[in-house]
Amino acid sequence: MSSGEMYSGYIGKLIEELEKLPGIGNKSAERLAFHIIGLPEERTEKLANAITEAKKHIRYCSKCCTLTDRETCSVCSDSARDSRTIMVVENSRDLAAYEKTGKYHGVYHVLHGAISPMLGIGPADIRLKELIVRLQGDVEEVIIATNSSLEGEATAMYISKLIKPSGIKVTRIASGVPVGGDLEYIDEVTLLRALEGRTVL
Amino acid sequence: MSSGEMYSGYIGKLIEELEKLPGIGNKSAERLAFHIIGLPEERTEKLANAITEAKKHIRYCSKCCTLTDRETCSVCSDSARDSRTIMVVENSRDLAAYEKTGKYHGVYHVLHGAISPMLGIGPADIRLKELIVRLQGDVEEVIIATNSSLEGEATAMYISKLIKPSGIKVTRIASGVPVGGDLEYIDEVTLLRALEGRTVL
Repeated sequence: MSSGEMYSGYIGKLIEELEKLPGIGNKSAERLAFHIIGLPEERTEKLANAITEAKKHIRYCSKCCTLTDRETCSVCSDSARDSRTIMVVENSRDLAAYEKTGKYHGVYHVLHGAISPMLGIGPADIRLKELIVRLQGDVEEVIIATNSSLEGEATAMYISKLIKPSGIKVTRIASGVPVGGDLEYIDEVTLLRALEGRTVL
Repeated sequence: MSSGEMYSGYIGKLIEELEKLPGIGNKSAERLAFHIIGLPEERTEKLANAITEAKKHIRYCSKCCTLTDRETCSVCSDSARDSRTIMVVENSRDLAAYEKTGKYHGVYHVLHGAISPMLGIGPADIRLKELIVRLQGDVEEVIIATNSSLEGEATAMYISKLIKPSGIKVTRIASGVPVGGDLEYIDEVTLLRALEGRTVL
């Protein structure tokens, strides 16, 4: 018996909906549902509205394809950003991760996925065409910042081969030991990558 | 900068609302928000409605005080249940945990909290009056199943002292080593409880 069935009607329905979210298991869904029921009505209204409104207003940036509620996102419409440097990321969260550093001054391109033959995701299934179109403009460097996973690497290789003939500089972010990471707990592949990518001090 | 501010308008608002939920940190809220935005509109509507509807319809069972969407909950309105045995639990999730075992045939009483002088929660702040009223009826045994925490134990002691003069049998669920638990990883207090509560084989 799932917890959805355990509880009567409305509680059950709420638990069921919450359980469908990623990373929310049976127990968390129950805990969240009871928490939500215990909130003042004004708070639950706010939460429900935030969901509905976000879904209604969010679309892809006409330039970099990130999720935004405007025609072009805040990065693309910021004239202080260097639009000749494009960082290619897998999704909007990765973009946000680099934005949080506050040190990257170029623009982005969000692929919304990575090439994965295993999952049947090919080059046509991610926002690659849009990137190619952008390269017709004034672009100096494409920094590929896809994840350091099998899919991310495959995507990086594919994009690099695609762009190189055009003469635009293509770079890849470094892989290695994370700052503050203890070598003891880091996997062998990362350790080897860090060794290969060593720099002179 | 919180992630709420990082993203423009509607995404930020959704992340902020999700972050307020218990056990949902910054990263999870971001991941959930982007997942929600990626869902078909029909699914987000369902989720938002489940929240609003649950909040609107849920109230306390007139008998056991558990959260329900009816006048009396499914357990209290089930005539097959033994209403002379009342299990006292701290909240509706604890009730559900015992219901999942499928082996308890009595009814419940949900306190919605535990006595905690530290947090300023006294006997008047939990649903204790309602329990006392129920004891005027035909009750044989009160099983105290509050948590095995400081607050749960204090509440158990308080209730037991309150009820005993009436002659109704008051019992407490056993504490000890969880089934499948490895002694090595269990705290000393639990180990001592398990020793004190040992039974003859």
